[in-house]
Amino acid sequence: MKIGVVAVSSRFAKERAEAIQAWFDLKFPLGEVTVAFHPNSFDKSGHFAGDDAARADAFVEFANDPRLDHIWFARGGYGSCRIAEAVMPRLTEVARRKRYLGYSDVGSMLAILYRNGFNVAHGPMASDGVRNDPTGFRSLNWLRKGETEGLEPSLLSDPRPAVAFNLTVLDQLLGTPLEPDLTGHILMLEDVSEAAYRIDRMMFHLTSQPSIRRVAGIRAGRFTDVTVNEPDFGLTGEQIVQFWCERSGIPYLGLADIAHDRENKVVPFGPRP
Amino acid sequence: MKIGVVAVSSRFAKERAEAIQAWFDLKFPLGEVTVAFHPNSFDKSGHFAGDDAARADAFVEFANDPRLDHIWFARGGYGSCRIAEAVMPRLTEVARRKRYLGYSDVGSMLAILYRNGFNVAHGPMASDGVRNDPTGFRSLNWLRKGETEGLEPSLLSDPRPAVAFNLTVLDQLLGTPLEPDLTGHILMLEDVSEAAYRIDRMMFHLTSQPSIRRVAGIRAGRFTDVTVNEPDFGLTGEQIVQFWCERSGIPYLGLADIAHDRENKVVPFGPRP
Repeated sequence: MKIGVVAVSSRFAKERAEAIQAWFDLKFPLGEVTVAFHPNSFDKSGHFAGDDAARADAFVEFANDPRLDHIWFARGGYGSCRIAEAVMPRLTEVARRKRYLGYSDVGSMLAILYRNGFNVAHGPMASDGVRNDPTGFRSLNWLRKGETEGLEPSLLSDPRPAVAFNLTVLDQLLGTPLEPDLTGHILMLEDVSEAAYRIDRMMFHLTSQPSIRRVAGIRAGRFTDVTVNEPDFGLTGEQIVQFWCERSGIPYLGLADIAHDRENKVVPFGPRP
Repeated sequence: MKIGVVAVSSRFAKERAEAIQAWFDLKFPLGEVTVAFHPNSFDKSGHFAGDDAARADAFVEFANDPRLDHIWFARGGYGSCRIAEAVMPRLTEVARRKRYLGYSDVGSMLAILYRNGFNVAHGPMASDGVRNDPTGFRSLNWLRKGETEGLEPSLLSDPRPAVAFNLTVLDQLLGTPLEPDLTGHILMLEDVSEAAYRIDRMMFHLTSQPSIRRVAGIRAGRFTDVTVNEPDFGLTGEQIVQFWCERSGIPYLGLADIAHDRENKVVPFGPRP
């Protein structure tokens, strides 16, 4: 089995790829699972891992390559919304048979892939694997085997389809051609390094959308490294999610075990298999 | 003539109100124009100038009060999106005869007021007046007399209806009940203290909206105090606006003389009088 790693967002360092390679070598000493990095992913264009055309080409090539079984996004940062719409019409049936894993900025990719019936999950990036924490390996097991052991625990008792997003990333694709139909879905939200007033403003925006009012309910993941607010905002990220659910009439379903941290659990999109 | 000053966003300090009072006394020593502050505006509720009910009540009371001629928003920060929808049905014909001035966070109020046919302009807050710079007095002259001397200069040669917004604030009201119909409008955008990658992501979101694709064109105001990006993003705020106009097919109309600075010019919403 071979996993393709490709960068669609911020610059991706060669040293980071080497660390990922070493992690795979350690986890699979007999070469049961190997990893391939798209050469474009080491390009640099200002903020990005190559310009939009280079990143789009890299993703399309890897997604359509029959020698690669599944795709793990290299890292987040920012940039995948710039290519998500353009790559979709270029994907073949080969691409449709793969699983795709990542979170944070690549939520834009997950959104449009899920909208088009692809098999995606919200979980750490390949770059996070090298921290050598449990979430990396759990997620890789979903990616390579569709394994459901490391899943977000509420999924085990609730059969409704689910999705998970970084709040900021979902907030910024609402109303665009990337937005999937989330009618009847459980929506899990997490974020990192945002100020409380921004979380509040995004929850206003999100819960005011007629499309989002059709979800089955919202779960609050962890909001970590919240930027200091002066004076104190008065609500945590989780409380802000609950506040806007109550105000908008969207059922608040409690906490979700997702975040930009080593405890994060995997959330495959859609109905349970 | 009496101007009502009311806080609908972040906390508003008594000292700031005293400075605004002193500025009015200096500018209008014969009492030709006086100023009144709503007592609720000095409330404190966490981040906000009182809780949502107190801020909404204050705005509605001042807007509907026949003894006040026009309304100047006290200051920005964050919070007006939390009350904008709730106050609209409570406004009377008295409120409809007034002019409303502010920018930044109160863009949420300008949006829903304009959507409902009220007379609003994008310009500094009452708090900015006390810097004693030209934009404060120019804007006050629009507020008290509808004067058009301090207007954004492109308005003089282009008869199409115009609006101006802080990019972040407009971005966060798209698709909500606050969003006005901007079909055929010139849309001017400015922002302060945002990172380039955030400006880029917001312009993706904004220009991907079917509603925004119907504007006559976009002008880029100044993007000031842009948060440092590592590595350098490669485009200025103005260049990012132009990039997304070109990509989305929205006409890019050049620069606009608006910003969170002392050079800012006033933009009354809608068609020229």
